[in-house]
Amino acid sequence: MKIVVDAMGGDNAPRCNVEGAIEAVRELGVEVVLVGQGDLILSQLQDLGCDAPPPGIEIVHTSEVVTAEDNPATAFREKKDSSLTVGLELVKNGKADAFVSAGPTGALLSAATLITKRIRGIRRAAMAPLLPTGNGGSILIDCGATAECTPEYLLQFAYMGSYYAEHILGRPEPRVGLLNIGAEEGKGTELQKQTYALLKEAGKAGRIHFVGNVEAREAILGAVDVIVCDGYSGNILLKTMEGTALYLTGEMKQMFKKNALTKLAALLVSDGLGHLKSMLDSREVGGTALVGISRPVFKAHGSSDGYAIKNAIAQAAKYVSSGIIESITDNIEYMRLPTSGEEKGAEA
Amino acid sequence: MKIVVDAMGGDNAPRCNVEGAIEAVRELGVEVVLVGQGDLILSQLQDLGCDAPPPGIEIVHTSEVVTAEDNPATAFREKKDSSLTVGLELVKNGKADAFVSAGPTGALLSAATLITKRIRGIRRAAMAPLLPTGNGGSILIDCGATAECTPEYLLQFAYMGSYYAEHILGRPEPRVGLLNIGAEEGKGTELQKQTYALLKEAGKAGRIHFVGNVEAREAILGAVDVIVCDGYSGNILLKTMEGTALYLTGEMKQMFKKNALTKLAALLVSDGLGHLKSMLDSREVGGTALVGISRPVFKAHGSSDGYAIKNAIAQAAKYVSSGIIESITDNIEYMRLPTSGEEKGAEA
Repeated sequence: MKIVVDAMGGDNAPRCNVEGAIEAVRELGVEVVLVGQGDLILSQLQDLGCDAPPPGIEIVHTSEVVTAEDNPATAFREKKDSSLTVGLELVKNGKADAFVSAGPTGALLSAATLITKRIRGIRRAAMAPLLPTGNGGSILIDCGATAECTPEYLLQFAYMGSYYAEHILGRPEPRVGLLNIGAEEGKGTELQKQTYALLKEAGKAGRIHFVGNVEAREAILGAVDVIVCDGYSGNILLKTMEGTALYLTGEMKQMFKKNALTKLAALLVSDGLGHLKSMLDSREVGGTALVGISRPVFKAHGSSDGYAIKNAIAQAAKYVSSGIIESITDNIEYMRLPTSGEEKGAEA
Repeated sequence: MKIVVDAMGGDNAPRCNVEGAIEAVRELGVEVVLVGQGDLILSQLQDLGCDAPPPGIEIVHTSEVVTAEDNPATAFREKKDSSLTVGLELVKNGKADAFVSAGPTGALLSAATLITKRIRGIRRAAMAPLLPTGNGGSILIDCGATAECTPEYLLQFAYMGSYYAEHILGRPEPRVGLLNIGAEEGKGTELQKQTYALLKEAGKAGRIHFVGNVEAREAILGAVDVIVCDGYSGNILLKTMEGTALYLTGEMKQMFKKNALTKLAALLVSDGLGHLKSMLDSREVGGTALVGISRPVFKAHGSSDGYAIKNAIAQAAKYVSSGIIESITDNIEYMRLPTSGEEKGAEA
C-alpha cells in the first residue's frame, strides 16, 4: 500500500512530516510518497540520518506550497505544482492509495472535491473525526466540511458514518444518533425534523441502526457510535469538547502545582493522569477522514508532530483496506432522495 | 422585593422549593410567594419546623400542576389553576416582581411569552445561562428557547446579552462574540454571515462591543463575555460542555479511587477538587433568565435542590434590580431591522 504525505502541510512541516513518514514505513509496513520541495525533504532526511531516501520512501518534487493565505477554493488550481495538487493527482491516477495532509482544511477539502471528486451520488463530503467519548470513541459526522446542510446530506452522512463505524472501528451494528436539542421526535429545527423522518425510514428498512435523537451531553457520554449533524453544529460540539477538556485539565494542573503535598498527589496518580492525557490527545488518532470523497483523503491537525503524522498515515491505511468506499458506492441508491436531481447544479 | 416561586415545578418539588424559599427569605431579605397545592406546601413547612408560613413567606393555593406530559404550548391555558399560570399572572399584574420555576422549560417559555409577554419589539425570547468559562463566566444567549433564528433575532440576543453582562455581571464593556466555526469574517452559514454584518454595524455605532466571530474552543477558554448564537447551537455548546465535564470528572474519580495511594492523593488535593466541583456545579448559579420577556422569569434546573432554588431566587432578585429590562426597552429601536414589520404575524 502506498500513502502520499503532503510534506509541506502543517505548522511543523516538513520536519515532522518526514519523521512521521519514516516511522510509518518502519512500523506499519506501508510505502510513503513524500510530495514537496525536494531539497528541503532531503535535508530533513539527512538530519534524521538518511543520506538517501530509505527503502519504502519516495520523493516527488513540487515547487509550490499552499498556505493559509491562499484562497481555499482555488489554491489547488492556482498552484498546480503544489504538494496539495500533485499529491492528490497521484491518488486520483491510481499511482497511490491515499493522501494525508496537515495543510489548511478548506484548501484540502476543495482540492479533494475537485481533483479526486466525490463518490458518484454523494452530495457533499464530510469530515468524520473519532471523538474520545464514553463508549471508547464515536464518529462525529460532519464537523465542518459542510456548514450548511440539507436533510439529504445528513441522510448520506448517517450512512457513511455507519459504514465508518462498522468497517473501521469494527462495530457490527453501529448505533446512529441525530444530534439534537431533545431526545423526543419533533425536536430541533426544520433540518432535524426532516432528517429524523429520513433516518427513521432508513432504520425501519434495516439499512442503518437509527436510535433517534441524541443530545450532546449523552453523545459525549457515549450513547451512540455515530453522531450525525451539519458541519456547523458538529464543529461547535468538537471545539466545545476541546475547549472544556483544555480548560479542565488546565485547572487540574493548577491544582496539582499548588504546593509540595499537591505535587506529591500528582506523583501518586501519575498513571491515571497519563491515561487521561492520552485519552484527550488528538495525536493518538492523528487524522480525520474526508468521507464521501472517491479516494481516501485524510486531514491531519495543523500542529501535528511526527507521531501524529504517523498515526494519520495508519488511519489512512486502515481506511484503504476497510472497504468503506465500496460500501458507500454499492448502497448509493438508498442514499439519494427522489427529488435530489434538482440539486445537481450544486455539485459542480 | 417579592419573588414568586413555582412550588410544584421540578423533580424535588415541593420540598426543595419550600426549603429554597425559606433560605432565600432568611439570607437575601426578599419576600417569597409560594404558589402551588396549599396542603402540600404547609406540610413541607411543618416538616421544616414551621407551623405557619414564617414572615416573608406567603402561600397562594392552586389546584393543578403542569408536568412534562402536558403539551408545552398550551399547558398554561389548559391548566388555568396551575402554579405556572397563577404565578405568572401575579408577576404580570404587578403583585410580585419575578417568577422562578424548576418546571418543564417548554411550558414555562410558552406561558411567559403569552402571559407576561415579550418586551415590545423583541422578536423572540432567549435563555441566557452563565457558563463557567475561563474568564470567570460568560453569558450564552440563546441556549434553546429559540432553536431556529433569523439575523434579527441574533442581533437582539447580542444586545440583550450585552446588557445582561453589563448590568448583572458588572462588566463595563462586555465583549460580544458571534459563535462560529472560524474566526474570520465570512465563516459559517448564511445566518452567521448576515448576523456578522448586523453586529459589526452595531459595534461601529458604539452600541455594543462586538469582537467578531468566536470559535467554541476560545469561547470556553473565556475569549468573550457574551456568546451569541441560535438556540440549537447554544444548546449543543451547553450540553457538550456538561457532557465533557461529567465525563472527565468521572474519569478523575476512577483515577482517584484506584488504590490506597491514589485515595491518599485525593485527600492531598481535596481543596482543589472542591473548587473544581463547585466551579462545575450548576446549583451555584441556580437559574437561567428568560431574557426578552417583559417581566423577570427564571428557569431553575429540574433537578434543583433547596440550595439551587435559593440561588435561582438570588439571580432573579439581581435581575429585578439590575435595570436590564429598562435598558432593552429604551434601546429597542436599534434592535429592529427596517424590514422586520413583515414578521409581525409570527409574534402571536
